Amino acid sequence: MLHNFIYFADMLGVIACAISGVLVAARLRMDPFGIIVLATVTGIGGGTIRDMMMSATPVFWILDNTYLYVILCTTVLSVIWLHHIHRFPVFLLPLLDAFGLAIFTIIGAQKALSFGFTGPVAIGMGCITGVAGGMVRDLLSGQIPFVLQKEIYATASILGATLFVIGHFIGLTPILSMLLAICGTLTLRLSAIYWHLSLPVFILDRET
Amino acid sequence: MLHNFIYFADMLGVIACAISGVLVAARLRMDPFGIIVLATVTGIGGGTIRDMMMSATPVFWILDNTYLYVILCTTVLSVIWLHHIHRFPVFLLPLLDAFGLAIFTIIGAQKALSFGFTGPVAIGMGCITGVAGGMVRDLLSGQIPFVLQKEIYATASILGATLFVIGHFIGLTPILSMLLAICGTLTLRLSAIYWHLSLPVFILDRET
Amino acid sequence: MLHNFIYFADMLGVIACAISGVLVAARLRMDPFGIIVLATVTGIGGGTIRDMMMSATPVFWILDNTYLYVILCTTVLSVIWLHHIHRFPVFLLPLLDAFGLAIFTIIGAQKALSFGFTGPVAIGMGCITGVAGGMVRDLLSGQIPFVLQKEIYATASILGATLFVIGHFIGLTPILSMLLAICGTLTLRLSAIYWHLSLPVFILDRET
Repeated sequence: MLHNFIYFADMLGVIACAISGVLVAARLRMDPFGIIVLATVTGIGGGTIRDMMMSATPVFWILDNTYLYVILCTTVLSVIWLHHIHRFPVFLLPLLDAFGLAIFTIIGAQKALSFGFTGPVAIGMGCITGVAGGMVRDLLSGQIPFVLQKEIYATASILGATLFVIGHFIGLTPILSMLLAICGTLTLRLSAIYWHLSLPVFILDRET
Repeated sequence: MLHNFIYFADMLGVIACAISGVLVAARLRMDPFGIIVLATVTGIGGGTIRDMMMSATPVFWILDNTYLYVILCTTVLSVIWLHHIHRFPVFLLPLLDAFGLAIFTIIGAQKALSFGFTGPVAIGMGCITGVAGGMVRDLLSGQIPFVLQKEIYATASILGATLFVIGHFIGLTPILSMLLAICGTLTLRLSAIYWHLSLPVFILDRET
Repeated sequence: MLHNFIYFADMLGVIACAISGVLVAARLRMDPFGIIVLATVTGIGGGTIRDMMMSATPVFWILDNTYLYVILCTTVLSVIWLHHIHRFPVFLLPLLDAFGLAIFTIIGAQKALSFGFTGPVAIGMGCITGVAGGMVRDLLSGQIPFVLQKEIYATASILGATLFVIGHFIGLTPILSMLLAICGTLTLRLSAIYWHLSLPVFILDRET
């Protein structure tokens, strides 16, 4: 049942990220292929990079094509929706996105731990799974990845992954660790959105 | 003999893509190393990403260095040609390029099928082999990959890969599937060039 | 002892590259997470790409977390230093950087040879290890990778890798090959910096 819940949550995260990819592609007036590429990259790019680094190849979506179908359906439905409604309940997106970030993070951290890697690697892999897809989306859109500059986004992912890893090592049940990690990520991320928090930006007084 | 034909066609595709890399690098006034990097990335980047995702590592050009020599020779000859002739029969490039796209697509799809992956994965791998090299070339040149925005390029690759996969599953001989796929890709791609076809771009009426 | 020397030199190279990542991130006013990402990518990105291509996965820093700790410490100390001193002995950076380039190059070439790959592949892997981290750093910063356009940087890496591979095949001891390669890279790179040498840029007289 835990496994089913994670799988379902993962799909929700993929859908949320795919929609964000569609919106970015639409803004850049990409053609249908560009829209599918950006949706795919945002949805499964982080996990793909994680799997290639961990030697968990062939990567997960090659073994379970459901991810591809889900992204394709999401893209088609989003485009139809946008074409007819001409607007999107944008306030929903950060919520979905924060949820996707929380889920992707624990999935990445758990996969690294289940491969027998150390805690720091698990935190890194959780963070890569959570944010790398969006970074590649931004690169393909000709922008500096926003997670590098703005808001507490990756930091929320690192917090969640750290909570999950700590939970794992002090012997909490997987479910409890996951809930803890998801709550941590969601709380920090949603607080950051709501109160417009961001980490202090580092400014050089003199040009170096 | 089929194997030899594919290998020869693959080399032609690599040459065509390497030349396109050289032209982009020359336009950006890159130094000799930059020219070689762009030629290499365009020529074998797509196959490299495909192999890393499919766990077909070490990647193909590590096992068969001919690819590296072909790219190096192509680059040197192109630079000498450009240096002395100062112009390039540019109308040839889209033809070579379309041919490379068609070949790379079936090679990627065939490799995925031969590894036992499913049809959708084979289509994805065919498309990645065909277009990813050019996308990385554009990224390194500081541009949004043109396949995401313009013309029926990736779509031709998807059509070819789909024809090849269908041919494979309804039991056509490999040669017939390949010819079918190559014809499909070439027809669609060359029509798109000739009549300036492109997919409808998706426009948001109101800003989201 | 040779092994210890290489490991120590590798860490020095990682530190030098991480500092260069921090400086770029600071100039772009990235937040702390962005700074860590750029430091990490510059420090271990080249080796990561090399390992993924060579099928030497899981990549080296997953197996030896020391790299992660070194980068984290370097980043924190650099930020504290910059925050208090407001300037950085910038003239040191190219020296450190040239040293990192020389070390990364031979480490990459040696790893490829020890996996039984050919000389040209070893040269390519040495060069990828040396320059790919900085290229990804530049991409993430929204810039065309500087190694493609300016100065004799990658060329120095190729020279070093070539010297190392030649030394290996004519039967020099590893230490001698390494010293030869490091001297070659450093001499060419530092000469290029000192006399502002660069490779002739290739210019198209007429637009193609």
